[in-house]
Amino acid sequence: MNQRVQVLEHILAANQTLAEDNRKRLDTAGIFSINLMASPGAGKTSLIERTVPILAHSYRIAVVEGDIATSLDADRAAAAGAQAVQINTGGECHLDAVMLQQALKRLDLAEIDLLVVENVGNLICPASFALGTHASVLVASVPEGDDKPFKYPGMYRGVDVLIINKIDLLPYVHFDMQKFERGVQSLNPGLTTFPLSCQTGQGIAAWQTWLISRLGARG
Amino acid sequence: MNQRVQVLEHILAANQTLAEDNRKRLDTAGIFSINLMASPGAGKTSLIERTVPILAHSYRIAVVEGDIATSLDADRAAAAGAQAVQINTGGECHLDAVMLQQALKRLDLAEIDLLVVENVGNLICPASFALGTHASVLVASVPEGDDKPFKYPGMYRGVDVLIINKIDLLPYVHFDMQKFERGVQSLNPGLTTFPLSCQTGQGIAAWQTWLISRLGARG
Repeated sequence: MNQRVQVLEHILAANQTLAEDNRKRLDTAGIFSINLMASPGAGKTSLIERTVPILAHSYRIAVVEGDIATSLDADRAAAAGAQAVQINTGGECHLDAVMLQQALKRLDLAEIDLLVVENVGNLICPASFALGTHASVLVASVPEGDDKPFKYPGMYRGVDVLIINKIDLLPYVHFDMQKFERGVQSLNPGLTTFPLSCQTGQGIAAWQTWLISRLGARG
Repeated sequence: MNQRVQVLEHILAANQTLAEDNRKRLDTAGIFSINLMASPGAGKTSLIERTVPILAHSYRIAVVEGDIATSLDADRAAAAGAQAVQINTGGECHLDAVMLQQALKRLDLAEIDLLVVENVGNLICPASFALGTHASVLVASVPEGDDKPFKYPGMYRGVDVLIINKIDLLPYVHFDMQKFERGVQSLNPGLTTFPLSCQTGQGIAAWQTWLISRLGARG
């Protein structure tokens, strides 16, 4: 196991260096970028579909889609009006800085204001691998249950923004919002949080306003 | 990266050997065991809560709970009437055969008929690590969406039983059951499938009947 730990530490250190390179490239190009993470089916792609058509009036948007297999999500992002690049990780449970570096080479960075990186659906592994993006955004969803912050603390501790998706399902599932928010606050005090529904559109405006404010604040 | 692949192959081979040892110990003790896998919040623990109280009239049940952090699920399994052992993986995104071997040492195997191993909530990593259990059971859930077989083929390909949980939410979400089942069949033809709701109890009986039939067929 010691050899394993050494290899992992080596990989994480190399990843950190590459993530810093990615950040420099993004900053030089004047791009604001987010790393969108969630468990499978929480609504990352639905959030992109809700966000891109509105922001595309004023900003040029690109989406990098990370998946084990298929280009289903890239197709959805492209249909919503974004430049879309698919990364198939071929079994890897998270994106890393090398994969983003490769994806950036396939994009015309001078033509992008906002870059959304949709990570692989997983609440564990993506938390360990910095990509070089400016903000980490976690999409939680109501049917997953109110105990998730307690069970996946590494993920909840490391993010800059939390989306609570599928609030339209609150009447139909057991989900104690106060318990959930206690968990979040204990791990990440003061975390910026947007409860919303990608299905009904409720709450989407506040999230878009935050994104636009960050786009306005670019270098 | 070559060093990384070598280390991973070494780990997987060692895991396979230990999984075979675990299987022998379980068979010798006359235990039927399942490896319960799912994405976070699909309903693994809820399924245990629905299953244990009914089967506990006739069978002695133990649950091994794998989690990144907390003993919340072990508490729920114990409250439902099972012997419960918690494994905190401390960040690892899956259980492995070593962890199950350690957990088996903490249980009185002569006093168990059914062993349920609840894996870490993750649709990727647990698919690669055999534990030595007799059947792999995947819990999917309706709000995750009907595209999940296509996106997590390794998991869907490798399981023996599929639970489709939260069918009570079908009226409130976009979920095309035929599309979902087409995906499942393309990866795992003839897979035994139980649509059910842990919230309402609908469909639970068929799953319990399957489990009882497997318990009856033990050596």
